[in-house]
Amino acid sequence: MSSDKLSAVLDRIDADFDKSLERLFDLLRIPSISTDPAHAGDCRAAAEWLAKELTGIGIESSVRDTNGHPMVIGHRKGKGKPGPHVLFYGHYDVQPVDPLDLWETEPFAPRIATKPDGTKIIVARGAADDKGQLMTFVEAARAWISEAGDLPISVSVMLEGEEESGSPSLHPFLEANGEELKADLALVCDTGMWDARTPAITTMLRGLVGEEITITAANRDLHSGMYGGLARNPIHVLVDILDGLRDETGRVTVPNFYDGVIEMPADVKEMWDGLGFSSDDFLGDVGLNIPAGETDRTPLEKVWTRPTCEINGISGGYQGAGFKTVIASKASAKVSFRLVGNQDPEKIRAAFRAYVRAKVPADCKVDFAEHGGSPALRLDFDSPSLAKARDALSAEWGTQAVTIGCGGSIPIVGDFKTKLGMDSLLVGFGLDDDQVHSPNEKYNMTSFHHGIRSWARILDELSK
Amino acid sequence: MSSDKLSAVLDRIDADFDKSLERLFDLLRIPSISTDPAHAGDCRAAAEWLAKELTGIGIESSVRDTNGHPMVIGHRKGKGKPGPHVLFYGHYDVQPVDPLDLWETEPFAPRIATKPDGTKIIVARGAADDKGQLMTFVEAARAWISEAGDLPISVSVMLEGEEESGSPSLHPFLEANGEELKADLALVCDTGMWDARTPAITTMLRGLVGEEITITAANRDLHSGMYGGLARNPIHVLVDILDGLRDETGRVTVPNFYDGVIEMPADVKEMWDGLGFSSDDFLGDVGLNIPAGETDRTPLEKVWTRPTCEINGISGGYQGAGFKTVIASKASAKVSFRLVGNQDPEKIRAAFRAYVRAKVPADCKVDFAEHGGSPALRLDFDSPSLAKARDALSAEWGTQAVTIGCGGSIPIVGDFKTKLGMDSLLVGFGLDDDQVHSPNEKYNMTSFHHGIRSWARILDELSK
Repeated sequence: MSSDKLSAVLDRIDADFDKSLERLFDLLRIPSISTDPAHAGDCRAAAEWLAKELTGIGIESSVRDTNGHPMVIGHRKGKGKPGPHVLFYGHYDVQPVDPLDLWETEPFAPRIATKPDGTKIIVARGAADDKGQLMTFVEAARAWISEAGDLPISVSVMLEGEEESGSPSLHPFLEANGEELKADLALVCDTGMWDARTPAITTMLRGLVGEEITITAANRDLHSGMYGGLARNPIHVLVDILDGLRDETGRVTVPNFYDGVIEMPADVKEMWDGLGFSSDDFLGDVGLNIPAGETDRTPLEKVWTRPTCEINGISGGYQGAGFKTVIASKASAKVSFRLVGNQDPEKIRAAFRAYVRAKVPADCKVDFAEHGGSPALRLDFDSPSLAKARDALSAEWGTQAVTIGCGGSIPIVGDFKTKLGMDSLLVGFGLDDDQVHSPNEKYNMTSFHHGIRSWARILDELSK
Repeated sequence: MSSDKLSAVLDRIDADFDKSLERLFDLLRIPSISTDPAHAGDCRAAAEWLAKELTGIGIESSVRDTNGHPMVIGHRKGKGKPGPHVLFYGHYDVQPVDPLDLWETEPFAPRIATKPDGTKIIVARGAADDKGQLMTFVEAARAWISEAGDLPISVSVMLEGEEESGSPSLHPFLEANGEELKADLALVCDTGMWDARTPAITTMLRGLVGEEITITAANRDLHSGMYGGLARNPIHVLVDILDGLRDETGRVTVPNFYDGVIEMPADVKEMWDGLGFSSDDFLGDVGLNIPAGETDRTPLEKVWTRPTCEINGISGGYQGAGFKTVIASKASAKVSFRLVGNQDPEKIRAAFRAYVRAKVPADCKVDFAEHGGSPALRLDFDSPSLAKARDALSAEWGTQAVTIGCGGSIPIVGDFKTKLGMDSLLVGFGLDDDQVHSPNEKYNMTSFHHGIRSWARILDELSK
């Protein structure tokens, strides 16, 4: 019975796909950059647009204020339905768009393009991360309700507006609304496929610690002729600190950094070796060919199971056209650590700050700014939900779905587990070449279309 | 006879001082930032203003085009005068004004202020470097001609518009106009006094090599979660290169960097020890108290007689508000070397580039941009001109003038010697706290007033 309904729902998805695309474009046009205070109004506009859409399709939703950007919360109880009550999570905020000059078209003017190989893509900031992904679920729910009159299971929705800026409001919001949000299972759509043909469920995520340090030396900029060789140059102090963070083997030197790092069991390594990951292809796609980082690790280990330290930004002195013989007063850098296993974000933040303080000369000052922290996550999941999702994905894509790791961080998954005691099922349709966080971000048309159909199938499977 | 004339000229300078100040303010209002192409028109405007002023006082002058910003060239032959024919040099271009938010008032809206200790100062970009300084000579010449009817010696004037941006047009211009510009002695006004009471003649200048390096890794910005630990981060490559430029004793590590460095003779060191230079005061004035740089050198050695390597600017990745978990595609830095003795600018540039290339991974690219190069200069000067200038300065300031070194670079002095076989007399009235190249640049009222009077006396002395 339910699979008759399903095929009708899938047909409806195909028939309405152009309208689904129009709705996604409306959302992509809103420049909801959460890290930039100038775009606070745009973040709220995106939240209001989503609450209206969800309510419109029958998932009663509202915009809920926080100290930062608002949450969108919605519920639709399936009357006396079997199966788990699920909470769907996505985020409507996006990354900044700089460097703007590298975008072929306006980041917030979405367009459809065709790649040389004929692949149709949706180009816009947020197309893949995460507006395109969250809309795959919204459109699946729309099709179920409009075609079958109801959802196959009870569904709640939580759409965040601060995922790209450290989620400062998330903890207080979960504390205050835990009872309302708690469900049997969280569905998180912010991850990728193994490749354009192979769907994947992510069962391992790296954590993150973000730090910004600013070194202040003299109380003003100095002439490098008059003071050079005698006055402290804060850029020299900064590069000494940053260069010292990694040794020649690529290991991070912060004391006790590797406490809690877990080695992968042999069986997992075996499965991953079976995936035939090609570092040449992975790096070749971005114009590189020499693996960086720890010299004694395989490429997949490096991106899935090993912690890292990356300098995400550095700034100091004269950066304009031409040259200025100045010794700057300040220099700063944004540094992030990816965490794995049981590494403790706050212990690592403290160890990093101690390492930096020990290297700053007595007549210089160092300031720290915290930019988020979350532990790594490993979902040890033999749950029926995982099996059902794998079946649904395999059926939709015609290829056996795989379980993989992910180098990125999705703090919400850890919070769902620790604060609401809720496991998460991580299913997403992004691809390595989506240029997430980069100019010309895109989302494959097939990811959007089959992503919608995939959620329709998963909801059906979970109801069985 | 000439000293009667002199006293009348000095009286005229005092009587007309307010007008001299108004003229300086007119020049300071022109934002002639030579390194920024957006200000090319302002540089020309400053040149035209100066040519008009000089011609107006009787020094026939014209604006002479170059491939960059124009030169101002003027001449006034003293009919049958004794004494040397001098060429006065100054520059009308100024440094950029960033960081603009640290300026108490508009950089190009000159104002007179009074410091807590009662010192009157002129505040504006270029007040000290070099518009205020070059106008001391212009106003002295004006007073001589208007009061005594003529200059005591033959005078040519050369005002450059690219001193703050590596003087790219200087060599071709000297090549093309050497015969016209050659004189018996150059008078250069771009240096400082020993302190607010003690006039100085600079006989030693450091050279300069300016380089900009850009490291390119991936062909686009990458997500530090997806690629972190495996893909090369160009900021890591850059900080490794930059941190390696100096060892733990502060010595520069570029191979053969110290070739040609000359140790000061004992007598010079003695004279300088006699100056009672206080590194605590010098650094304390800018909020520092620990001498940086080479651990085995005295502070005055460091700024006058030792070569340096300074990072003047660094840039890469996300530098905006908040945080972005990105691995940048590019990172760049502006690096300058101060040279002494017989260090060869082009050999050092080549050695630096070789050092950098050797450290860049094979799948990354490095680009270099040249930002000027000039050898150090030591004026071994027992010439009567030096003695005459010392007498004139001592008479004006009531304190014995000293001969000193200067950490900065004035490429023109080397070019006058090598291309025109002409010695230079370096006399200036800047002070350590002028905030040259920094926000709130200033020039003491006494420097401007007694600077004008000093040149009037020097012209008189040279005519004897």
